[in-house]
Amino acid sequence: MARPSDLQAPRGTRDFYPEDLRLRSWLFAHFREVSRRFGFEEVDAPVVEHAELFTRKAGEEIVEQLYHWEMHDRHLALRPEMTPSIARMVMARAGALRLPLRWFTVTQNWRYERMTRGRKREHFQWNMDVWGEPGVGAEAELLAAIFALLERVGLGGGQVRIQLNSRALLEETLRAGVLRERPEAFEPLCVIVDKLAKIGADAVVEQLRDPAGAVRLSADEARDVVGLLGVTGLDDAAAAAPPGSHAVAELRRLFELLAAYGVADRVDFDASVVRGLAYYTGVVFEAYDADRKLRAVCGGGRYDRLLETLGGPRIPAVGFGFGDVVIAELLADHGLLPALARGLDDVVCALGEAQRPAAIALAQRLRASGRSVELVLGDTRPKRVLADADKAGAARVWLLGPDEAARGVVRVRELATGAERDEALS
Amino acid sequence: MARPSDLQAPRGTRDFYPEDLRLRSWLFAHFREVSRRFGFEEVDAPVVEHAELFTRKAGEEIVEQLYHWEMHDRHLALRPEMTPSIARMVMARAGALRLPLRWFTVTQNWRYERMTRGRKREHFQWNMDVWGEPGVGAEAELLAAIFALLERVGLGGGQVRIQLNSRALLEETLRAGVLRERPEAFEPLCVIVDKLAKIGADAVVEQLRDPAGAVRLSADEARDVVGLLGVTGLDDAAAAAPPGSHAVAELRRLFELLAAYGVADRVDFDASVVRGLAYYTGVVFEAYDADRKLRAVCGGGRYDRLLETLGGPRIPAVGFGFGDVVIAELLADHGLLPALARGLDDVVCALGEAQRPAAIALAQRLRASGRSVELVLGDTRPKRVLADADKAGAARVWLLGPDEAARGVVRVRELATGAERDEALS
Repeated sequence: MARPSDLQAPRGTRDFYPEDLRLRSWLFAHFREVSRRFGFEEVDAPVVEHAELFTRKAGEEIVEQLYHWEMHDRHLALRPEMTPSIARMVMARAGALRLPLRWFTVTQNWRYERMTRGRKREHFQWNMDVWGEPGVGAEAELLAAIFALLERVGLGGGQVRIQLNSRALLEETLRAGVLRERPEAFEPLCVIVDKLAKIGADAVVEQLRDPAGAVRLSADEARDVVGLLGVTGLDDAAAAAPPGSHAVAELRRLFELLAAYGVADRVDFDASVVRGLAYYTGVVFEAYDADRKLRAVCGGGRYDRLLETLGGPRIPAVGFGFGDVVIAELLADHGLLPALARGLDDVVCALGEAQRPAAIALAQRLRASGRSVELVLGDTRPKRVLADADKAGAARVWLLGPDEAARGVVRVRELATGAERDEALS
Repeated sequence: MARPSDLQAPRGTRDFYPEDLRLRSWLFAHFREVSRRFGFEEVDAPVVEHAELFTRKAGEEIVEQLYHWEMHDRHLALRPEMTPSIARMVMARAGALRLPLRWFTVTQNWRYERMTRGRKREHFQWNMDVWGEPGVGAEAELLAAIFALLERVGLGGGQVRIQLNSRALLEETLRAGVLRERPEAFEPLCVIVDKLAKIGADAVVEQLRDPAGAVRLSADEARDVVGLLGVTGLDDAAAAAPPGSHAVAELRRLFELLAAYGVADRVDFDASVVRGLAYYTGVVFEAYDADRKLRAVCGGGRYDRLLETLGGPRIPAVGFGFGDVVIAELLADHGLLPALARGLDDVVCALGEAQRPAAIALAQRLRASGRSVELVLGDTRPKRVLADADKAGAARVWLLGPDEAARGVVRVRELATGAERDEALS
């Protein structure tokens, strides 16, 4: 006898019944169609990887949340994100791949997190990445693809906005300032300041000052950093940056390109966006519902040094991840979840075992023409068959009784109108 | 610096580069299309389940091969097969689901196995299951769906045959004979005799006699059992079965139905097929390449008591699993792996930064019409762009230089013919 807990999906994971899976397939089809239109190619990597691949260059949070275990002398983990696996794949064929690469994935990832609205321990994620292009033209393509997806699912009217910053800008500014002497503190600083919205300014200052931490600023310096994160206009950020800032010039160019895509009015510069992963190096961005009620719809950025840190060549890269959970919450909030029918065309029923071979032949003929056909297996009382077919959304029921069989016909009922007719069986 | 082993996919797992993923998507699309035509609905369950779900009713081999670990006081496992998860889902909604259910899945499963040809530590598997139908009409539908898939991928000419048996027949025969006094030994007996082809008759006899095992036959009894497994005709099997055997009648009815589907000539009765999982109760089957060079292409059977053993109601069920690895080997052996192009339609290139906004607008317009469009990001030398577009299989290249922009046109080159023309930009 089973303990009840065994008979439920583990907490934070999901069963997909037919209606859930139809919705998931609908969303994935949009992910794939947008990717196809932008000329991206789909790839995939193992769900189980060596744990080291994920712990080497990630921020502390992702390491704490890793599903990992030792087995046969290997330290294995479920992938918490796709980027390290994709980096591994790029590196393995670095010499043979035509750059820039445009790759996308639609895959499941796992993180052992505390659960709140829009947060589970697994989710599916659409990733698009460009490898081998250093310019912000790549960022512009990716942001345009995100908006193309949002438009396809009915969220093209400003219900989602993208907040965008540049770690390169923050890095330039801090290395001309408080990190002048300790540039290596920049990455751990990013992991801390990413938590600003979650833990508040005081806690961030505390962690930046922690004498046992990797950053170790003075109180004044820590408060200066938090002040920088409050800048919301690109002009103000430019004023705080060193003169002739390359990062500022790139951000200005990016906004020009976004205007050409017709999406610049839905993108805001926001200096508080830094992202939690250690490996980002340039533009970083997050998309949120305009009311800021939900977690990020998607997020991404540039990670030009990741391949080098894995021991590979320097290939610049930029990408994003777009989950299936928050977007579904948002679509539900806006009444935009589609009502997706099962798509059954025909129900074929033999009234009596003697008619079954003829019913099978008919069902097979209809299937060969591309129709979705349910062959009734058990209870063949016509009343129950018709009611079930109606509930299942079928268009047509084909009834094969002894009388029809004797005349070489089948009785066809159109469920929408109730009209019936006989059709020749062969 | 990384250790090299971290930078490879774990042994027995696969990276899917674009060409690999195109093949996988092609196969999955066939799985889904056949399922749709047969009126089946897609479902999914978590990759990570409570380990107990898989160890309770499985044979010993699957328990040894489980990827499992303890974490936060939970014993978790990667699913080695879909059936227990689907059973859990059916049980959770047993009262509300319209029976018979026709469900299918296309999912990834994991087993820590020794690796040989056609065997990895993960594979994708197509499952189709019918829940709530006790008659062999369900088996016939499933076998017909397998042949429909084989026909779609070019293997409709007898390159694959199905070997079929009935555990109910074996059970009836043994319970009237050597297991008269100990019917509970039937399930462990099946797990042992499933290994006949792998370990040979002597080793099977040895295990059936093992005084520390669950079966404990005498030497004569064990040899009788192995003898029964050698029967290849249904008439011979019927002669060995108790008079008035229900299982024999069902098998005869199944072959009649298979004839109506036009597939009976590709299905053989074979008493040695018992399948390795403990939970099967009735018809069991496996598909093999006609030359028997590869592992089973697919396998399945009836498991009418599984839901009861999980503490749920008694709902009869039958299903199969069809992996992605062996079928790919077989298609390769027959030269039937399709050459799948990337499907890129257009390449759009701005010759100079000033033309980029116009190139973006053009690319977006082509994408909005449904075309797959690569916007050139980096190196824009026309010669390289044309060579790359040709290699990528694009149909058309759109070049936007300063001269064209001044005239409000774009230069279009058809790559198949080399023909060029100017087209108005707006």
